[in-house]
Amino acid sequence: MTAQLRADGTLRHLLTLEGLSRKDITLLLDRAQQFVRPIGARAPTSRALEGVTVANLFTEPSTRTRVSFELAAGRLGARVVNLEVQLSSRVKGESMLDTIFTLEALHVDVFVIRDAEAGVPALVAAHVAPHVSVLSAGEGSVAHPTQGLLDALTIRQRKRRFDGLVVAIVGDIRHSRVARSACHALATLGVAELRLVAPPALLPGADELGGCTRHTDIEAGLAGADVVMMLRIQRERMLDEAQLDGAAYFESFGLTPGRLRLAKPDAIVLHPQPMNRGVEIASEVADGPQSAIRDQVRNGVAVRMAVLATVARAGAEGGSA
Amino acid sequence: MTAQLRADGTLRHLLTLEGLSRKDITLLLDRAQQFVRPIGARAPTSRALEGVTVANLFTEPSTRTRVSFELAAGRLGARVVNLEVQLSSRVKGESMLDTIFTLEALHVDVFVIRDAEAGVPALVAAHVAPHVSVLSAGEGSVAHPTQGLLDALTIRQRKRRFDGLVVAIVGDIRHSRVARSACHALATLGVAELRLVAPPALLPGADELGGCTRHTDIEAGLAGADVVMMLRIQRERMLDEAQLDGAAYFESFGLTPGRLRLAKPDAIVLHPQPMNRGVEIASEVADGPQSAIRDQVRNGVAVRMAVLATVARAGAEGGSA
Amino acid sequence: MTAQLRADGTLRHLLTLEGLSRKDITLLLDRAQQFVRPIGARAPTSRALEGVTVANLFTEPSTRTRVSFELAAGRLGARVVNLEVQLSSRVKGESMLDTIFTLEALHVDVFVIRDAEAGVPALVAAHVAPHVSVLSAGEGSVAHPTQGLLDALTIRQRKRRFDGLVVAIVGDIRHSRVARSACHALATLGVAELRLVAPPALLPGADELGGCTRHTDIEAGLAGADVVMMLRIQRERMLDEAQLDGAAYFESFGLTPGRLRLAKPDAIVLHPQPMNRGVEIASEVADGPQSAIRDQVRNGVAVRMAVLATVARAGAEGGSA
Repeated sequence: MTAQLRADGTLRHLLTLEGLSRKDITLLLDRAQQFVRPIGARAPTSRALEGVTVANLFTEPSTRTRVSFELAAGRLGARVVNLEVQLSSRVKGESMLDTIFTLEALHVDVFVIRDAEAGVPALVAAHVAPHVSVLSAGEGSVAHPTQGLLDALTIRQRKRRFDGLVVAIVGDIRHSRVARSACHALATLGVAELRLVAPPALLPGADELGGCTRHTDIEAGLAGADVVMMLRIQRERMLDEAQLDGAAYFESFGLTPGRLRLAKPDAIVLHPQPMNRGVEIASEVADGPQSAIRDQVRNGVAVRMAVLATVARAGAEGGSA
Repeated sequence: MTAQLRADGTLRHLLTLEGLSRKDITLLLDRAQQFVRPIGARAPTSRALEGVTVANLFTEPSTRTRVSFELAAGRLGARVVNLEVQLSSRVKGESMLDTIFTLEALHVDVFVIRDAEAGVPALVAAHVAPHVSVLSAGEGSVAHPTQGLLDALTIRQRKRRFDGLVVAIVGDIRHSRVARSACHALATLGVAELRLVAPPALLPGADELGGCTRHTDIEAGLAGADVVMMLRIQRERMLDEAQLDGAAYFESFGLTPGRLRLAKPDAIVLHPQPMNRGVEIASEVADGPQSAIRDQVRNGVAVRMAVLATVARAGAEGGSA
Repeated sequence: MTAQLRADGTLRHLLTLEGLSRKDITLLLDRAQQFVRPIGARAPTSRALEGVTVANLFTEPSTRTRVSFELAAGRLGARVVNLEVQLSSRVKGESMLDTIFTLEALHVDVFVIRDAEAGVPALVAAHVAPHVSVLSAGEGSVAHPTQGLLDALTIRQRKRRFDGLVVAIVGDIRHSRVARSACHALATLGVAELRLVAPPALLPGADELGGCTRHTDIEAGLAGADVVMMLRIQRERMLDEAQLDGAAYFESFGLTPGRLRLAKPDAIVLHPQPMNRGVEIASEVADGPQSAIRDQVRNGVAVRMAVLATVARAGAEGGSA
């Protein structure tokens, strides 16, 4: 496991939330909160990353997460380059690292890596020069740390606390990096109960996420929850593994207004997007008063600004070496 | 129909030129003229849009219009993100709006939308928050309002007036958003005569563009014209509907030097580009002394700067809400 | 042949290093050296190109060279637009120039053109307005002038001189624009001996690169060399023309530690990247103490900054016309 922290305890890479302390995560949330503006207000800007170069390495260029990172870096004054690359340690081996070293030699200070196979972000982080930081923007089904942070920030804004909260994560947990990073963050932040709610085929392996309770009945899983975190169902997987189509899934596991009433009256609903309306979530819920889904997006750019400002501050010092 | 103007009469969206007043259009042309520089001079720049974020949503990323909008926004100091997305109300329904809401939550202030099916720009405009503006960069065969404005600006620069002008629009008018927006602008600005000149299969329906005269004979259509606006022929359509190949089309409807002599001696020639030389226009005409085609491109970036500066000024005020 | 120099002797275009004087090349290397920073230091920045617009026209958008030019232009304060276009004089003829003229009318001041068929950069340069510059970022197998400059700069940094040096260029020289530009630069800069080392099928035609010696035996080619410049082997070509697979090529022409010992003890190794490790070069050599490959990348952005600053300075003056 690549160390994410420097010897002095400051954050250098962000590959996973697993292993970060409550203090580490809280510092990031506090910093992100400073970048939050109401939707409709002008975006926050600063010059904290002036002179810094950020490379977005995404396997697909047109994703919301890419735009969120691009705007976060740009609004801090960084220069951003977007590259569409396939990073794979199996297929390309050293040639992947050659690409990284090339960009490093072009004075790239921060790599944002998306959709690489499991292990790639850590492999890159293990090889870059000391002044360079690596941020995961989603790694296989392993981790999506900035998503976990934005989920936590959204919960904190709405609930003002973590202790005592019951959080139900519902859907394709087995394949979900979003679920894993949320569990890591929320367990560390001290929620009372983390429930994994899914059809048996979509629950993670028994050796994973040990501190969580498991439910294969959605009604039981939602009962009394403070936070309902819905996951995206990927149709191709669902059909293979759970033998369900979209309508059947909605019937058995979709979040309807009726099911949401099983949660606490002031429960909030999260979804990482993009949503399959009518599959994992009803439109009335997605657009309803308990939905915090748009807040999540707004918080996402704030979280990414906070993470970039945190890792690159130290990067600037390293740059004078 | 989505209102393009705010309650105070200022421009909020630009989806079509239809329904804009002569004063509205003239204000935009006047503002655009301030951004016009000779080809060869440095581009104009300003900080009018500093802090504003513009998202270019184009189905194809590598178009001249995308670059024109990107440069216009950037030269005003805005931050620009480019996304290649398929916007379709039929296929994706609410998921299209989810994409829009996501970008709105990332503090995008202006959406520039290209090549969406008819109705999509208005649908987006009807759903965005009050501080957000939507600009059409070409909507099906319905409208291309910044193209209509740049055509009008080019004519005004060369002819110094609209009243009394005879304008012939020649080619595939039936499928042309360029023709429709030009007609809307020029009729409102008060030209004397608007002629639609096309083979019968390429004329618009009888219920459309009522104030125009129609010609299926190009020689009659060009006679005495002050402005000859050629349209791009799309070969696949032409073959299906008019049963012509490129050479045959050129024979019957191409703008040759000989045909251009039927227009006034000081007539100018416009074309929205890209040109099919030897199909709808002869190279001698495209590159000849009466051609104003390169002026159109130069004016295009000035028009887009003017539109962006106009809608986003009010956007900045709305942003403090 | 399009003149690359203006009447006053300053550089306007950079399409090839052939024909540039030793003084011209030395000036560019001196200027580039000012932009060199250690890997790990912050990138150099300046405002020399503020107000200048640079268009990157690449057939493939995700190349290291595109990023290198994009960062070079951006760090000088220029505005950069990236376009993925197919430039071909055969297929599109005048329509290629229409694209160029369109961008020129959008106040693009510098075109960076990559991967166009042979002759395209010169054709573009012959047609642009006087204030516009054209830079080749790699033209078929003809020329890659900024690569040639960065190779020369890397050699100068490590060897402090050109006179007396023995340079061996090894690999698929026949198809290599890198080899051609390196030969042009290094011959002009006065190296003692330029050796072309390749299997017979991969040597250039007998009428080309006349001042070089030729070797089909790699051991003889490497003996006593100060600089070993390895070229990328393109598998598809190799298989067709030299009837070799990767392992067989490595056996007969790969740069191994053992073969490198035939060169001078302080010989340096260059490679334009991307590398086929285990085909043309062993990893121990690529990553070894004699390798200057990462320096080449770092020098590449410095060279591109120098070239941009050189051609666009005069461009700014032309812009007031």
